[in-house]
Amino acid sequence: MNWLERDAASVWHGFTQMDCYGANSPVIVERAEGRELIDVEGRRYLDAISSLWVTTLGHRVPELDQALREQLDRVAHSTMLGNGNRIVIEFAEALARVVPVDRAHTLFASDGAAAVEQALKIAFQYWTNKGEQGRTTYLAFGDGYHGDTIGSLSLGGGGFGTQIFDPLRFPVLRAPAFTEPGALHTAAQMVREHHRKLAAVVVEPLVQGAAGMSIAPAGDFAELGKACHETGVLLICDEVATGFGRTGTLFASEQCGLRPDLMCLGKGITGGYLPMSATVASQRVFAAFLGPDLSEKTLYHGHSYGGNALAAAVALKHLQLIASLPVLDNVRERSAQLRAGLETRIRPFKRVKHIRLQGLMGAVELDTSDDPKLARRTCTAMVKRGVLSRSMGPVITIVPPLTITAAEIERIVETLAAALEETA
Amino acid sequence: MNWLERDAASVWHGFTQMDCYGANSPVIVERAEGRELIDVEGRRYLDAISSLWVTTLGHRVPELDQALREQLDRVAHSTMLGNGNRIVIEFAEALARVVPVDRAHTLFASDGAAAVEQALKIAFQYWTNKGEQGRTTYLAFGDGYHGDTIGSLSLGGGGFGTQIFDPLRFPVLRAPAFTEPGALHTAAQMVREHHRKLAAVVVEPLVQGAAGMSIAPAGDFAELGKACHETGVLLICDEVATGFGRTGTLFASEQCGLRPDLMCLGKGITGGYLPMSATVASQRVFAAFLGPDLSEKTLYHGHSYGGNALAAAVALKHLQLIASLPVLDNVRERSAQLRAGLETRIRPFKRVKHIRLQGLMGAVELDTSDDPKLARRTCTAMVKRGVLSRSMGPVITIVPPLTITAAEIERIVETLAAALEETA
Ligand SMILES: Cc1ncc(COP(=O)(O)O)c(C=O)c1O
Ligand SMILES: Cc1ncc(COP(=O)(O)O)c(C=O)c1O
Repeated sequence: MNWLERDAASVWHGFTQMDCYGANSPVIVERAEGRELIDVEGRRYLDAISSLWVTTLGHRVPELDQALREQLDRVAHSTMLGNGNRIVIEFAEALARVVPVDRAHTLFASDGAAAVEQALKIAFQYWTNKGEQGRTTYLAFGDGYHGDTIGSLSLGGGGFGTQIFDPLRFPVLRAPAFTEPGALHTAAQMVREHHRKLAAVVVEPLVQGAAGMSIAPAGDFAELGKACHETGVLLICDEVATGFGRTGTLFASEQCGLRPDLMCLGKGITGGYLPMSATVASQRVFAAFLGPDLSEKTLYHGHSYGGNALAAAVALKHLQLIASLPVLDNVRERSAQLRAGLETRIRPFKRVKHIRLQGLMGAVELDTSDDPKLARRTCTAMVKRGVLSRSMGPVITIVPPLTITAAEIERIVETLAAALEETA
Repeated sequence: MNWLERDAASVWHGFTQMDCYGANSPVIVERAEGRELIDVEGRRYLDAISSLWVTTLGHRVPELDQALREQLDRVAHSTMLGNGNRIVIEFAEALARVVPVDRAHTLFASDGAAAVEQALKIAFQYWTNKGEQGRTTYLAFGDGYHGDTIGSLSLGGGGFGTQIFDPLRFPVLRAPAFTEPGALHTAAQMVREHHRKLAAVVVEPLVQGAAGMSIAPAGDFAELGKACHETGVLLICDEVATGFGRTGTLFASEQCGLRPDLMCLGKGITGGYLPMSATVASQRVFAAFLGPDLSEKTLYHGHSYGGNALAAAVALKHLQLIASLPVLDNVRERSAQLRAGLETRIRPFKRVKHIRLQGLMGAVELDTSDDPKLARRTCTAMVKRGVLSRSMGPVITIVPPLTITAAEIERIVETLAAALEETA
């Protein structure tokens, strides 16, 4: 058997129809250099999706490798339950200095969805601990995506055929999708109307990523923040996708003028190296859980590998790098270049319906009305040309590493154009 | 501020009342050697809880370090969504050769709870894909623990004050706890009675870990397996805690004579180094998800860091080591020694109510009726004597690395005895 057959026989890939796994030109990665992935045959691919939006500075970053090696010589992991670890403290402190959260306290997990689950449970218990009854539901957005576990899936707006799990999902109050004009205004009104039953509002600030990069105007978010603030409803910003520079600032909440009570982080947190996610809580939230030992005020939630020392070491070094290198400048410059390229070279294609871009989260939406697999086939055509891309429904996503160069942006645009010539 | 104050100010520890974090003698780990953790002051602690049941061969295992370094020189991570990675294939193949699951297909995640969520969603969608209506609930056990995300928490038997989250949990059919005589027999009867509405049975084979190491007789499980087999109800074995040698065989299912349709793995999977979890599905289950591309038969579930290459490299080497070294023999020998030690030295203490041990999952349950913090204080007394232990309610857990030596077992027992002299 070749690698592809071995893969299909033993690995179950998520969000992937395994019956045609091989037919959609999967890349079987063996190694990487910089922003290129190299497959088992030695072919190279520019990683234009940052290995699903996680890679920030590229692969095999010497400083991150070094940080990991050094931590390996100390300890790989020790438990966070009732005990601590020096490198985790150092990372939590560094994070607290940069997140737009008051006196941040960080609870670690490994999957992004788990960070969302932590936030939703903390928000729920917050009200129980405060002795306030009835604050048992959430306001969440249409088209929102927060992960695939039952709690995070309940907050999500559906899609991807997930309605079959409705019997397992808890209901939420649903604000409009970002594609609706005035979605944030409507949401703010809903908060004012329903605040007595709301534990929290959950929102992807600025960009609904998995929805296909739906962007709401940054200026629209302040009203939602204000409504939460005035009614006491907790604000959860899910920055799993937008965090760590992806949208042009370290966190998208900054551009939105939001200071959440709870913030969910993942993906870019380790620069794309290692599983880590985190729920950052403000002092207001944290304080509500203080009480006598073994009392019911305690948060009885924790994951075995939460606060992994190796991941923390990489995350700490990554945060130092992203703050010291001109990464965010590059995101803004390359974003402008990418926008211009898409407008000039891609917009003219008849099948192109929408182009959306915020920082380096980009989407080209195609008219797939008479060819449901058009976006999928276009991505395949890109992969054949050495640029790794991935479609979501009618959308081609462009999410390159934050250190992408001008020449590489050019190459992505030209490859997409060539692919569209072939397929559209 | 000292390390402890810095920790308490920035890290939120799960399952920990942060108001008295410092008062319960937390160990702030800086490095490790073998089975010892070393704190920021250079003090050494025998890791008698395997960093919460994850460490199998000890800390800083040269072969695991080496495997991680080598993978780091290839690539740290690439996405599993629609694409593959060589080391992940190699690990999935190695895993398939040893799990008691027919033609295993593995879907990766990072938190153990996420592996459980995957299993429960796969079981649910299995019936939808088959076109069978009404198979929408689960049989799960009293006192069971499967993680803290809403789905895994729904399966769990409650406790730890989690009933406050009831409005968010979906209901399940509840079999008796393992502490009830004939629990498995009752469960099998419930399966036969209710199978038309059951998607799956979820069980911790042999030992309910978080319940305080409740053990059911291995011979009792066959009847449950048979009931599932005959009624078609899927069997999910949650081996997050019991997997990878902890109970004396590579998987506890083997001792129980079970061949599950779905198996959840985590904790020991990387030897305690890196976050990784996995849901292993049998061919029967996997096949039900095959269909046309982009069709609703697909499993739309996946985590950003599922199938992390660094974790896979460590997991692969770990599996090779655990199979080639006489680890399982050591578990059985040290378990016998530990049992004898607990019977001789610990049983005589008046406050000792129960001693439970399966492989190297051990619990000493105290009578805490007139001192709710007795187990907690006893563990603190052990920590002060250089043995890291942790209490769960009235229970002191003893879960040492699988490579623990005879002298170290002796030390754990003597330390516990000395601690009980002080506290009980
Ligand atoms: C049987 C069982 N399942 C699931 C879990 C959850 O794993 P995690 O803590 O990694 O989310 C645990 C953790 O203790 C467990 O013991
Ligand atoms: C906004 C958002 N939240 C949560 C998640 C879930 O993260 P994970 O896939 O690591 O579970 C994602 C993943 O794409 C995301 O985009």
